[in-house]
Amino acid sequence: MAKKTHMVICRLSRYLSILQIQRAEDKKYLFSHILASLAHVTPAQVRRDLMMVGANGIPARGYEIANLVRHIEKVLYASHEHRLALVGVGNLGRAILSYLPGRMTNLVLAAAFDTNPSKTGKLLHGVRCFSLDRLDEIVKREAIDIAILTVPAAVAQDVTDRLVQNGIRGLLNFTAVALRVPRKIHVEDLDVVVSLEKIAYLVREKA
Amino acid sequence: MAKKTHMVICRLSRYLSILQIQRAEDKKYLFSHILASLAHVTPAQVRRDLMMVGANGIPARGYEIANLVRHIEKVLYASHEHRLALVGVGNLGRAILSYLPGRMTNLVLAAAFDTNPSKTGKLLHGVRCFSLDRLDEIVKREAIDIAILTVPAAVAQDVTDRLVQNGIRGLLNFTAVALRVPRKIHVEDLDVVVSLEKIAYLVREKA
Repeated sequence: MAKKTHMVICRLSRYLSILQIQRAEDKKYLFSHILASLAHVTPAQVRRDLMMVGANGIPARGYEIANLVRHIEKVLYASHEHRLALVGVGNLGRAILSYLPGRMTNLVLAAAFDTNPSKTGKLLHGVRCFSLDRLDEIVKREAIDIAILTVPAAVAQDVTDRLVQNGIRGLLNFTAVALRVPRKIHVEDLDVVVSLEKIAYLVREKA
Repeated sequence: MAKKTHMVICRLSRYLSILQIQRAEDKKYLFSHILASLAHVTPAQVRRDLMMVGANGIPARGYEIANLVRHIEKVLYASHEHRLALVGVGNLGRAILSYLPGRMTNLVLAAAFDTNPSKTGKLLHGVRCFSLDRLDEIVKREAIDIAILTVPAAVAQDVTDRLVQNGIRGLLNFTAVALRVPRKIHVEDLDVVVSLEKIAYLVREKA
């Protein structure tokens, strides 16, 4: 899949969270240039993206928010749910566990894993935490297809291999490790250092 | 600046961290297709990017790692340093504080801020934590130009306004809030939900 499509999906997902906040504030309509400024993209880009999902604005009122949400959800969400696991409940894993509940549609956080016995067997923010020893069994039993990797770098590749062997299809990688996976697995790398270097570059560019 | 350039910077930054790991393992040369597979991009993309930074491979040996690192660093890093602050030392802030030391070149984490008196005045992973009340004073005094925002959503816009007023130029936003900033400020939004929705979409596409 082209890099370009990746970016469209990211923008649509971002528009959606902005629209949901606007809707929660009882707003009914939104102009594309306001959405653009909130999403940090150009108004022309917003209009192209919204045209792509089949949504039309009304002159002098903008886009109807409820209608726009429906259009974007139809593109973004499957009719079936995805089941997620988080592996590694350190500071970062814990922060993600506390952040996710109530924020996702059709994505279900079904299990967490850690090696620390003080965490296993417990419910953490509503998610059952299992021992890492049971990873293979639980990933299969719970039909988990996406994993969030927040383990120490030293075990990242090993845990990834086990996840892939047990049917994982997508992986959100928070470790600095360049994971080796079969071609059919989609890995998304989220590295804070990479983002900071990009910001620093742009700050210098604009100076 | 074009979206395209953003992506080049992200890829170069990623190549660099991979090359540094390879170098630490005493490797001297690396083929572009190996780098491509570790960075999860196509070999053609890697070769285009490396040509852009002015690096050339050697037939049958690949790229000399030390040389490649120098070429990429010349594009990515300024001669001067950037000074960073992290605002909000919850689980996520703490995870980032423990992750960053030793991973950045010319980016200096100069201060952290929180409202909790049990954290302020202390060194956290080598970074001094100040009371949020002192944000304006310290950001100016320390000449901080980039901030990492890991505060609760309710105060995100207010903290952002204060950061901008005191000279911040770039912002890495971990909150789900669509921040309003002047055009000259660069905001990078890092939302786990957006990344997970993208992965779910791609997993369905490939199925």
